[in-house]
Formats: sequence, C-alpha cells, structure tokens
Amino acid sequence: MNLIKRPLILVVNDDGINAKGIRVMIEVMNRLGDVIVVAPNSPQSGMSSAISINRPVSYNRVNLDKTPQIEYACEGTPVDCVKLAINNILDRKPDLCVSGINHGSNSSINVLYSGTMAAAIEASLDDIPSIGFSLLDECENADFSEAMLFVERISKKILSNGLNKGICLNVNIPKKSSVKIEGIKVCRQAKANWKEEFKSTGNLNVSDEFYLKGKFINYDSGKDTDLWALENNFVSVVPINIDLTSYKSIDFVSKIFSNE
Amino acid sequence: MNLIKRPLILVVNDDGINAKGIRVMIEVMNRLGDVIVVAPNSPQSGMSSAISINRPVSYNRVNLDKTPQIEYACEGTPVDCVKLAINNILDRKPDLCVSGINHGSNSSINVLYSGTMAAAIEASLDDIPSIGFSLLDECENADFSEAMLFVERISKKILSNGLNKGICLNVNIPKKSSVKIEGIKVCRQAKANWKEEFKSTGNLNVSDEFYLKGKFINYDSGKDTDLWALENNFVSVVPINIDLTSYKSIDFVSKIFSNE
Repeated sequence: MNLIKRPLILVVNDDGINAKGIRVMIEVMNRLGDVIVVAPNSPQSGMSSAISINRPVSYNRVNLDKTPQIEYACEGTPVDCVKLAINNILDRKPDLCVSGINHGSNSSINVLYSGTMAAAIEASLDDIPSIGFSLLDECENADFSEAMLFVERISKKILSNGLNKGICLNVNIPKKSSVKIEGIKVCRQAKANWKEEFKSTGNLNVSDEFYLKGKFINYDSGKDTDLWALENNFVSVVPINIDLTSYKSIDFVSKIFSNE
Repeated sequence: MNLIKRPLILVVNDDGINAKGIRVMIEVMNRLGDVIVVAPNSPQSGMSSAISINRPVSYNRVNLDKTPQIEYACEGTPVDCVKLAINNILDRKPDLCVSGINHGSNSSINVLYSGTMAAAIEASLDDIPSIGFSLLDECENADFSEAMLFVERISKKILSNGLNKGICLNVNIPKKSSVKIEGIKVCRQAKANWKEEFKSTGNLNVSDEFYLKGKFINYDSGKDTDLWALENNFVSVVPINIDLTSYKSIDFVSKIFSNE
C-alpha cells in the first residue's frame, strides 16, 4: 500500500453495473481510496471464468451518480472486465480488487459458477490482493447496511496486510436479520452440491426446453466450513487458490499409470 | 465397472457436437461401452463453468452418423450439457464421463477458462470418474490419430481403476509430429498466466471495441508440471480438485482476522 497516494481500488461484479450491490460497494470503497469501476452492463450471474473468445468486447465511460469514482460499463463477462481493466484501462496495478457485493451466496461449491468470484480470482492471477463479497440475500433491493460494515473492515485489513500471491478471499455475509452477526470466521469450502431438477418452460414450439432449478445439499458436517460459519451467523472468509491440482491424488493416479 | 453390462459412457465437449475432436472421441468410446453424447450445438470455448441461469436451455436428439451412440445437441454451455445429461437424459449414473477431445491446450491456467475441463469437473461433482482430453493443436482439421490411442489407453485405465471422489483428470496430448510421444506423466498444474493485449476491432461505430489476444507466459521451472511434460513430448495427466480452499493460506488469513 502506497502511503503517499491513496490506494487504487478496482471494483467489479457480475450482477451488472446498475445492481444495488455494486453501488453500495462503490460507496464504501470511495472512503478507502481512488476507485475505478469496470463492470458488465447487464447481469452476468453464473458466468464463472467465461471469457470472450472470437467475439469482440467493448466498453464505454459512464456517469451513474455524482460520487468521485470513474466508471466503465463493459459488454462482456466479469473476467473480461478484469482483463480489460488491468491491460487496457488502468495505468498501474491496483492495490486492491473487490468484486460484488453479490446478491446471493457464493459459499461452498457456488464458487465454481460465480462470476463474482471468477473476477476476484482473475485479479489474483496478476497478484492483485482481491476479495469477492456476497450477501446471502438474492433480492434486487436487499439490505446491505450491515454487509457494508464488514466490507469496509475486511477491505481495510487486506489493504494493510496484503495477501499471498495467487490467493483471493471468498467472503460471504449472512442475510440482514434482527440477530447481530457474531464476527468473522476464516474457514474452508464446504463439500456440498446442487441436485438439479429441470422445469419445462412449457414452450410448445420446442419439445425439450427447460429452466435449471436446483436444490442445494450440504454433505459436510465440519465446523471449519463456510456453510457452518454462515449457519451460525458468522461472516465466512475462505482463502481461494487457483492451483486446481489435487496433490492428495497424485500418488493414486501415478500408480494407475505406473507401467505406461 | 459393471462386468455384465457394457459401461455407460457420457461424452461431452465445448467445441460443439460437430467438431472433429468429439467425433473421434465417440469413435474410441464406442469400442469401450455404450455411448451417450450430450454436447453443445455450437462452439462454447472459454465458457468455463458458466451455467444458464434465468434463461432456458433446450436439447434435441440428433443422428450425425451411422455409428451406435445416442446423441443430443444442446443449446447451452458445456456444464448445462452435463447437468441435463445426469438429471434429465440418463436413467443411471454413467461409469465414465469424457470431455473433448479439445482442439487446443488446456494445460496449466487454461483449466480455469476451459469449457472442456468445466464439463469434466461438473461430472466429478457427482462422483462420476471424469477425464478432459485436449490435443495441443487448435486446427479445425487437427490430426487426432495418435491422441486417440492415448484417449483409449487412459479411459480403459480409469474404467478399471476409478478415481477418488470429486477428482477428475486433465489430460493434454502433444501435437502430432514426427517424434513419437515418450509416454504418460502424472503432474501438477504449472504456474503460468496470460499476458493480455487487446486488439481494436476497427469498428468505427464503437469507440472501444476489442478482441482479446494473449501471450502465454510460464513462470514455473519445475520438472513436475504439465507444461514441462508437454514440452518434453509426454502426455500430461493432472488430477483436478474442486475444493478451491488454499489450506496453506488459512493460517496467514486467520492471523489477519484474529482480533475480529
């Protein structure tokens, strides 16, 4: 963190530049540094680390309110936004990248599908300390008031302490309720999965057209998981790694191929 | 593996159901079991684990050649294809899921963006032994003849031995050349990244429209990596994990938040 200049903070999301979650994130970040926003111009939930290959991406400067951030709306995925920001828009590496605040949970296996987390992961590939923030409330008009306090506290901590190279944080915040949040828990990703059911759209012109509907199932009774933390009214913080190698499986797989 | 019935094999990809890579994969799999293909009806490269949220997906039965597989073309992402196959199309869990053969490398950090690998990862979430295969040749008409031999050998091994739960394999195969492939190496994902440059489309109607162009940079000199294996003419096999937690970072991050 540069002690003379204010920190440069890149803000991205997957719900689109007009979502309430990113507007409140910008409000918090304007208190902490100089803010550049590069966000999709339309909702991009569930886009994971998708990138635009063989089709162009465009962006344009926008002014959505009178606060001091500089904003660009991008016709692309959340990861496109980060790549454009780092390589085409910013003239120096940001001190922090924050993604969200997502409307809905990105705990456990949701990290895999999340555009919010993909954007944070993408920034971490360039060794930018990065955090994805999500509130466990999918409502368009969700109450982010308590979440904003944690976003500010956690962002300040990471601006001061940094993060190991190639690591970002997956932060999930319980839905606002009458019960005060207990605190912050650093944890691991719980083993859980979606049991999908497909619901017919009823479109008579197409015989097999469906909407994806899922039921979330937690297979993990560990008290060191993000799901346990959230169920017990803690903010969950999971350090996320971009090396997908299963080191535990290397021996088993090596034995399978030992005579090849 | 059921010794009475032939194994049931699910074939998916991201290059689309008409790509040469999936057609040769089907040819190999028809020798090993009963084959069901559920693949995108158009190219879906770089789609990562994107899923169709809030928009419908459809699929329809197709007959693209006279070989015995059953095929469905899907209007959706590679992960949509796997979810549809498991939950809507197949009446039992497949014994193996193979994805590809991808036209182009999915080694190292490419695993993050790859629709081919996302499909294999998705099947592994349901504890289906899964393998993503990629050939280091992006040509539409690439020579898959040598790759097919390795696809068959590796698939047979996994049908016999299975894989640990939640693990899939990322298999990359050197481009066909005059030099014989040395063998198979089980390795870890190399630390590498793309240095992006954006190239203007020259579209005069839009001021800031770009194509994503990248230069791949390997930061990893380890001889236990997939990039080393491929550079030295081995087939690389990396066991891939869906738990993204950075266990090494939990202590460091816990210290940051110790007084919260």
